[in-house]
Amino acid sequence: MKADPHELDLVLTRIVPVPRRLVWLAWTRPEHLVKWFTPAPWRTLEAEIDLRPGGIFRTVMQGPEGPPMDNAGCYLEVVENERLVFTDALLPGWRPAPNPFFTAMLALEAVEGGTRYTARAMHKDSADREKHAAMGFADGWGKALDQLVEVARGMPD
Amino acid sequence: MKADPHELDLVLTRIVPVPRRLVWLAWTRPEHLVKWFTPAPWRTLEAEIDLRPGGIFRTVMQGPEGPPMDNAGCYLEVVENERLVFTDALLPGWRPAPNPFFTAMLALEAVEGGTRYTARAMHKDSADREKHAAMGFADGWGKALDQLVEVARGMPD
Repeated sequence: MKADPHELDLVLTRIVPVPRRLVWLAWTRPEHLVKWFTPAPWRTLEAEIDLRPGGIFRTVMQGPEGPPMDNAGCYLEVVENERLVFTDALLPGWRPAPNPFFTAMLALEAVEGGTRYTARAMHKDSADREKHAAMGFADGWGKALDQLVEVARGMPD
Repeated sequence: MKADPHELDLVLTRIVPVPRRLVWLAWTRPEHLVKWFTPAPWRTLEAEIDLRPGGIFRTVMQGPEGPPMDNAGCYLEVVENERLVFTDALLPGWRPAPNPFFTAMLALEAVEGGTRYTARAMHKDSADREKHAAMGFADGWGKALDQLVEVARGMPD
């Protein structure tokens, strides 16, 4: 977890020892995503992915206590193996969402030994940023990334 | 102004007697847009257009009384001469906006005698839709479209 110059963002950057193609597949195929997306003991019960600008990105997550949480948003940019942007500020088909919170940008760069992985969460104000930080962004996204690496390692080459 | 089956939207549809290329230019070039975008006696003082997904669409409008109103959002889809989608739910570069209100979809179809012009405003809930209707969507967008037609007619072929 590196501090970000932009005070409204939270950023996780790490080099992971898997090719970026596999990181991309882990993010963009529901059958992979459900295995790593939520840090244990949370689980991702379901994922829905329509991989194009305006297409749905929806997950259903559940913690050890409490009911399932259904989150729907849409993709904004899809550049295969390189860059994935999605938001919960717009529903699929571009309608403004009832409870906007953040836009996520994932950037993947091929480097010696694997992939430079950068995940950025962009908020409308510092209150939302602080709320996201308090929800455990750094630990949560870090732990999920560990899980992603395990999933990617288990993929056929 | 036609009623829309989707209760969260407001829609203006009309056939206008100008080629859709000119309608497109009226919407996408600041020097044209400032001439028609706000129904008189409102004025558009300034327009900023970066015509690509995630690029800025910003206008400064002013009524006969009151200070200038600065509205910034971004484009979501840009299909030349055919389709333009923008929102105030995201700022340029995809950050969630502080005061989201609507997404606008403009569709242009070449028809006998001109262009079928469809402008749709999509809201997150019926309260926002009603608010937009009460602000004068039908009259305002209709009057602005009359102005657009005049501007388009004055353009060189």
